[in-house]
Amino acid sequence: MAHGGPEIEQLIQLLARLPGLGPRSARRAVLHLVKKKEQLMIPLSAALDRAVMAVRTCEVCGNIDTTSPCLICADPRRSESGMLIVVEDVADLWALERAGIGAVKYHVLGGVLSPLDGVGPDDISVEALLMRAHEFSEIVLAVNATVEGQTTAHYITDRLGEDAPKITRLAHGVPVGGELDYLDEGTLSQALRARTAI
Amino acid sequence: MAHGGPEIEQLIQLLARLPGLGPRSARRAVLHLVKKKEQLMIPLSAALDRAVMAVRTCEVCGNIDTTSPCLICADPRRSESGMLIVVEDVADLWALERAGIGAVKYHVLGGVLSPLDGVGPDDISVEALLMRAHEFSEIVLAVNATVEGQTTAHYITDRLGEDAPKITRLAHGVPVGGELDYLDEGTLSQALRARTAI
Repeated sequence: MAHGGPEIEQLIQLLARLPGLGPRSARRAVLHLVKKKEQLMIPLSAALDRAVMAVRTCEVCGNIDTTSPCLICADPRRSESGMLIVVEDVADLWALERAGIGAVKYHVLGGVLSPLDGVGPDDISVEALLMRAHEFSEIVLAVNATVEGQTTAHYITDRLGEDAPKITRLAHGVPVGGELDYLDEGTLSQALRARTAI
Repeated sequence: MAHGGPEIEQLIQLLARLPGLGPRSARRAVLHLVKKKEQLMIPLSAALDRAVMAVRTCEVCGNIDTTSPCLICADPRRSESGMLIVVEDVADLWALERAGIGAVKYHVLGGVLSPLDGVGPDDISVEALLMRAHEFSEIVLAVNATVEGQTTAHYITDRLGEDAPKITRLAHGVPVGGELDYLDEGTLSQALRARTAI
């Protein structure tokens, strides 16, 4: 490699594996890092080292944090609502937390059932969910509105069985700030059916 | 920070400063890193450490490499052509190297003259270029076809003076694979004026 040497080339290849970056943008990112060595490259290197050491998966809910149980699971105020929100992915948990939905707890499935991709019940965190479900008064199945997400929701509802807590799902409807014109028909008809009085 | 802890939050903030990544994609990237801790996060952390240690700017040409003079400057075969290609940025040097243009040498200006942004002749590597220009038989000013790039090319031509080597610039024309329909008028008229016999 005439340009950059093996250290640079390897860094580009690893960065290119991040979602949202390809080979070209990874190269640009590395050049930017090298130019901002003191302000960005060295702090990033140190932050990554620290994160590698500190980060772990919460053994209760599947969240990513620096402690296990995570700060959310360890927070006693979050038990008061009695609400457990089941999500597919840690990213969904973080999105709900950013939305400031209040003091709730979570369970991260780590995926959805997808027979075509070979993802069965043992590949996602269903058993752990069944073990803790009785601690809550309401289980919100906040899985994505995809076929796999809905299949997973049905499966979990079945497995929770008769004496389960109340099971709910997120409302469908028009996104806040969204334009009707750009919405698909399924969402629009769901939004009309679930219309509310002003 | 309820989600992820300070180590994760800091990593997101630093990654978000890379070109091509914003806060949202940096968050996705960090989640991806944490999920692929063994395969990606730890190797990336190690690669970044190594790059921080190894990378330096070539004191001859301004290229980024792990040695100074860089591998290009240290390669005696690259002197034979007598051609020095002047570029704005290391990214341009790498792009030319990827194009496989042959055994040439480079000079990285590290920017272009831009009075509006307060970039003057002392802020880019012109003096170093003047010092080494006499070693070459041709100087190709491969600056971008922008106003600032062309201003910089004029300035360098002036400074090189009367007894300078031959000074050339890259050809303008239709990009290979490009469709005429999508090209601006300036490029089209330049391409027509510089037409060649088939």
